[in-house]
Amino acid sequence: MKIAVVSINATAIFILSWKEIKMEKWIYEKEYKTLSNEECLLDETVFHNANGYLGVRACFEEGYPEGYQTIRGTYINGVYDIADMKQAEPLYGLPNKKQTILNVADTQGIKLYLGKEEYSAGTGTLHSCKRSLNMADGVTKREVDWTSPQGKQIRLEIKRMASFVEKNLFMIEYKLTSVNYEGEVRIESSHSGDVKNFFDASDPRVSAEAADYLEPVQCRAENGIAYIVQKTKTTGQEICSAVKNISEELVSLGIFREERKAKEILEGNIEPGETITLYKYTVLTDSRRFENCLDGGKKVMEKILRIGADNLYHMQASYLNDFWQKSHLEIMGNDKMNLAIRYNLYQLLQSTGKDEYSSVAAKGLSGEGYEGHYFWDAEIYILPFFLLTNPKIARSLLEYRYSILDGARKHAAIMGHRKGALYPWRTISGEECSGYFLSGSAQYHINSDITYALISYYLATKDEDFMLDKGFEMLVETSRLWLDAGGYVDGRFHITAVTGPDEYTCMVNDNYYTNVSVQYSLRWTARLYRKLKDSDRLAVVCEKLGVTEKEIEEFDKVADAMFFPSDDKTKVIPQDGGFFTKPVLDLQKVPEDHFPLLLHYHPLFLNRYQVCKQADVVLASFLYEDSQTEEVMRASFDYYEKITTHDSSLSRCIFGIVAAKLGELDKAVEYMGDSAFLDLFNTHHNTKDGIHTANMGGVYMGIVYGMGGVRLKENGLYISPVLPKEWEGYEFTITYEGRQIQITVTDHVRIKTETDKPLNLFVYGEPYEVCGQLELKRR
Amino acid sequence: MKIAVVSINATAIFILSWKEIKMEKWIYEKEYKTLSNEECLLDETVFHNANGYLGVRACFEEGYPEGYQTIRGTYINGVYDIADMKQAEPLYGLPNKKQTILNVADTQGIKLYLGKEEYSAGTGTLHSCKRSLNMADGVTKREVDWTSPQGKQIRLEIKRMASFVEKNLFMIEYKLTSVNYEGEVRIESSHSGDVKNFFDASDPRVSAEAADYLEPVQCRAENGIAYIVQKTKTTGQEICSAVKNISEELVSLGIFREERKAKEILEGNIEPGETITLYKYTVLTDSRRFENCLDGGKKVMEKILRIGADNLYHMQASYLNDFWQKSHLEIMGNDKMNLAIRYNLYQLLQSTGKDEYSSVAAKGLSGEGYEGHYFWDAEIYILPFFLLTNPKIARSLLEYRYSILDGARKHAAIMGHRKGALYPWRTISGEECSGYFLSGSAQYHINSDITYALISYYLATKDEDFMLDKGFEMLVETSRLWLDAGGYVDGRFHITAVTGPDEYTCMVNDNYYTNVSVQYSLRWTARLYRKLKDSDRLAVVCEKLGVTEKEIEEFDKVADAMFFPSDDKTKVIPQDGGFFTKPVLDLQKVPEDHFPLLLHYHPLFLNRYQVCKQADVVLASFLYEDSQTEEVMRASFDYYEKITTHDSSLSRCIFGIVAAKLGELDKAVEYMGDSAFLDLFNTHHNTKDGIHTANMGGVYMGIVYGMGGVRLKENGLYISPVLPKEWEGYEFTITYEGRQIQITVTDHVRIKTETDKPLNLFVYGEPYEVCGQLELKRR
Repeated sequence: MKIAVVSINATAIFILSWKEIKMEKWIYEKEYKTLSNEECLLDETVFHNANGYLGVRACFEEGYPEGYQTIRGTYINGVYDIADMKQAEPLYGLPNKKQTILNVADTQGIKLYLGKEEYSAGTGTLHSCKRSLNMADGVTKREVDWTSPQGKQIRLEIKRMASFVEKNLFMIEYKLTSVNYEGEVRIESSHSGDVKNFFDASDPRVSAEAADYLEPVQCRAENGIAYIVQKTKTTGQEICSAVKNISEELVSLGIFREERKAKEILEGNIEPGETITLYKYTVLTDSRRFENCLDGGKKVMEKILRIGADNLYHMQASYLNDFWQKSHLEIMGNDKMNLAIRYNLYQLLQSTGKDEYSSVAAKGLSGEGYEGHYFWDAEIYILPFFLLTNPKIARSLLEYRYSILDGARKHAAIMGHRKGALYPWRTISGEECSGYFLSGSAQYHINSDITYALISYYLATKDEDFMLDKGFEMLVETSRLWLDAGGYVDGRFHITAVTGPDEYTCMVNDNYYTNVSVQYSLRWTARLYRKLKDSDRLAVVCEKLGVTEKEIEEFDKVADAMFFPSDDKTKVIPQDGGFFTKPVLDLQKVPEDHFPLLLHYHPLFLNRYQVCKQADVVLASFLYEDSQTEEVMRASFDYYEKITTHDSSLSRCIFGIVAAKLGELDKAVEYMGDSAFLDLFNTHHNTKDGIHTANMGGVYMGIVYGMGGVRLKENGLYISPVLPKEWEGYEFTITYEGRQIQITVTDHVRIKTETDKPLNLFVYGEPYEVCGQLELKRR
Repeated sequence: MKIAVVSINATAIFILSWKEIKMEKWIYEKEYKTLSNEECLLDETVFHNANGYLGVRACFEEGYPEGYQTIRGTYINGVYDIADMKQAEPLYGLPNKKQTILNVADTQGIKLYLGKEEYSAGTGTLHSCKRSLNMADGVTKREVDWTSPQGKQIRLEIKRMASFVEKNLFMIEYKLTSVNYEGEVRIESSHSGDVKNFFDASDPRVSAEAADYLEPVQCRAENGIAYIVQKTKTTGQEICSAVKNISEELVSLGIFREERKAKEILEGNIEPGETITLYKYTVLTDSRRFENCLDGGKKVMEKILRIGADNLYHMQASYLNDFWQKSHLEIMGNDKMNLAIRYNLYQLLQSTGKDEYSSVAAKGLSGEGYEGHYFWDAEIYILPFFLLTNPKIARSLLEYRYSILDGARKHAAIMGHRKGALYPWRTISGEECSGYFLSGSAQYHINSDITYALISYYLATKDEDFMLDKGFEMLVETSRLWLDAGGYVDGRFHITAVTGPDEYTCMVNDNYYTNVSVQYSLRWTARLYRKLKDSDRLAVVCEKLGVTEKEIEEFDKVADAMFFPSDDKTKVIPQDGGFFTKPVLDLQKVPEDHFPLLLHYHPLFLNRYQVCKQADVVLASFLYEDSQTEEVMRASFDYYEKITTHDSSLSRCIFGIVAAKLGELDKAVEYMGDSAFLDLFNTHHNTKDGIHTANMGGVYMGIVYGMGGVRLKENGLYISPVLPKEWEGYEFTITYEGRQIQITVTDHVRIKTETDKPLNLFVYGEPYEVCGQLELKRR
């Protein structure tokens, strides 16, 4: 594939040659003309297989021609070891260790020999090479047509799947067809625990050091299944990888083992026109989820083999059928955009952990960028998608946060707080892992981001059980933190020395986003207390936490006293108390190759100017829209748009949503297009390190929250759809208070509910009661 | 010695038992009752010998009893290697290497054997052990009266000197007297290049890693002199240590060499009442100052041996006689304070480099704290002493800064500036060595601190040659930096994202200290340009630098437009634009053992509150007093006094000076007392890592600038003496415009000049012309 220049301007994307990238309704397909290393690395990410539990990068089974870089990786969500993180000056409280995701056993390896000739993309003639992702079936496919140096022509069709139903399973179906070759075929199917994590010393966004975190426990073969058990050096977590190869056409010569490696050799014969198929099943288990991961691995593998490939494929398709039905979202007459959107939603499903041990890493399970850490991305960017399509997954993400609440309490103490909980900025199991606290631990807003998600979950589901079990405790503990993190000055409550979402402006006083989010969070803590007050269970929680009526009143009092920076003249909300005393950075004078700025300028330079990496005030305009007049929102949007570089992938989607809200639909379309194609076209130049999951969530939000104007408020569901002139219409399905609602936007807005029970909602701010269907003119 | 608790409150110091510490006019003497490890470590610093070029910690020649920790070190000012300094997140522009002072060859070792018994403070009976520093002679002495386990009683008198005249020389005179012993004496005089730097992983103020920076080049003996040449691993700097032992009573058995070590063994006999003396001469040379340091070492050693011990002692005393005459400072009737003051001034002389390769390290040459780096301490705290007593040394310090101006230009570019020079916050030869930029590189004020010193030098000397040669270039380049570091907002010039002197409040906008110092610096750049405009040499400099009249006008314009935070209601100057939006930290609630705060709280905690490590606005009140009314100065002093912890040793002295200025003389005396005894009584608990040179300069400033009210202004010398009621009077001599002036303050103020040439000055703000002598009533 050759894409000359992919502009980050969405409109430019359509100049691409679609002959080379095919986008059918459920299939993203790419045909390679040449195999550049860059393209291979990118597609290891783009076509990776994951299911929220495990992820496998889409590396070639046979490896690459010599000299090619590859990030060959397999990951388990929530399984980690500890890496050193030396601080240049070891100040009090700075972490000097960090949790890091592991590259676990590599079971991708399949080498093919035709007689004495080894199949390799680097030799012979590659007639064609295609890769595709089928999002209805949940499989990826690589199709190769190749002739060896000695003239043996074969075709390969390699399907891969990470099962959404059987989370521990990754499988490869390797199908060899001979065109003209007659003779011996040998396949070496390998399984290696001798793996290291990837590193790149030059990029602060990935790990700077290669490390080998695993030590061997055992390597054994039983019933033709190879098991490798390894243990992390510091955390002592065990991981078992089990591999079984099955082929009707081949005979196994046995499994050959070393301390950390196993290899099965299979042989047979082929004739022109014949096909040989190998099924390679990998089952991964870990000791966080299994008491004994070897036993667990055996049991799961037995089950998998009983089910068999055909049924596994079927289960996958059926799972996805349900997923796509719930996540229905379509722009009429814009198939390319639809496919891109589907790609993003599919990746969210692949990336998101669905148990209490895991959340969504910044790169999902597609790579090692940001070391598998969970950030606010999960709650602010990704959870909103699941909340409106699959609230159980949203709940699971919140349950993960509850599971690390104790870690957040400890972190608060390290940060000098006498009470409350402060969620770590980046973590796997609750310890702060950010090495640079200015754009790490200083981002206190992660606390209010989590509570925002919690409140949204409550608003969308009215799940009082969860709030009583877990939610209220999180609200109280984070609220307590806020009271200790800020203080009164002349009767107003100030929160100082924090960093807002914009990481180019660190450790500021009265970051607007932080203050408004804290106000919302404190108010909701008090509000929820009053809503649930009659429940005996609330009394138990309050007793346990020592919550008093007086403390609840204090939350409200602080919320009322919250200080907000403002600017009467321009109406623009200052990002923080001192933001407008800084000169504006003239972005026109920054050389084009100096973006993203963080890779070319010292942090002090970035902090010296009004220049934003990402949406900050504008994000607040979206999340806390009722705290601002539209005049202020518009003034701020216009202002920040000029000084924001969108060097963060979390930015454009938010600008798109607020543009939609303000009626700037051309802009909204442009921002959403940029977001939708970010990873497919590698516009941030680092998709090789993994997908940008937060942005993917942003793609969904752009349409549903942006164009659709969906909001969750105390008095109900709000829908305020707009339609850009480029679109014929669009349609999406959401789940609200347990039932599905389909919204179709053309000249009209049609709202359909699945039951006849009346649904109260607000359309364009006006209250309606929908029984079955409501249709009205679009504004 | 037993000092139960030394309060940091000066008045409490005088409860000490003076029987144990004697303070004669020139001699600080300490008699040990027990030799605790803590006391030994402290006194390795307190009694160290240095001369601005080399420094040797006062370790016992024979070593310590087993289990004692020692920081055995010998240092050369300006000689360094490079250490790794990994950043937890390798952001753009953060240094990942740093220069570090070296522990060079150890030539202190002298082991004494009486027959088969080895002398050691850990065995036998130590009848007495005294150490003293004679500041008139410039020697330290250790006197020991000891009986061996087998009953051999001896006395040792060990003198040590780092010659101020022959900078490369450190010598030991080791005198053994037998009380009752008759028999063989053997001395092993060692010389070892096998040394490492000290480390302490728990304290961010010293190096966190042991490192061996030297590799052997050669070890040879010639004419009874042992030479060890070593080379630093990264910078390739060579250091030669030459050692010669001379004793009339002993016979040398020769010099025994290894790769990096040499040892001379000397033997003889002794009888009761007899004395054996060994002179051990060490000459250190380095390749930064000598083209060939081995040749240089040989030549210097030859010269030293020709001069001989007696003459060397004489030269030392003569040098010091001159020094003390120029630095005359005496409080009448307060000998203890006088001795403490002398101790501080003596250490300044020992610590200060006097060539272009070196300045004054934070710990002088007495230890490895802060890794031998030069900070603003040199210009703001130490230079003012030399400026008024020995302007040549002040000039040398400025010449050092000129020598690294190119480094400052490069540093400015790394920090994203398009022009100008930004001095690194900590460095040896010009590269930024601070690992934590918030209280490192962000302290842009180092630029204006250096120019402040430069302007002071000009005011005290009117040395136009220096300004034309070097000074003006430094002014222009730093002024250019300021124009790029700040910017106009609504017509006012703001400097943002910098840290002022107070390191508990980092990366702020419009730090008052910074802004006022920049205004002063910009104005003086323009002023000096106009003063020197008629000189052809200025035209040459301007040509070279491309300075135009328009640029000079721009400096003035920016100075005029400078923004200053203010508070109309309280008159207190806000430390920065956002300072007063932070709550005040209640210091009463901080547990006593949590000071210094930086060792017990996360940086974000410290930044969240109004709490100061050190003088910031108050320092500006001293240095830039004409920028404030006395009302504002007083309000600010009162305010900041309450929220300053003085966790920095650079703080109390400044509060003392401003207290004196404001007539709060009791406070001034208390602050000055605290400063004067800081190292002698180890009140900061880390004098073992080295003396606090900045504070020592502050001791001088406290009296001369504080009580004496000396100021250097454009229209002349200002003197405004005050006299605290505890003092009978005081007297000091300063050098101004090339002549000495003696000021005596009692009920009267008497000002004597050494020539009859009339001197114009201001006393209490009134202009006077002094011919020989002026006497008037003290206010």
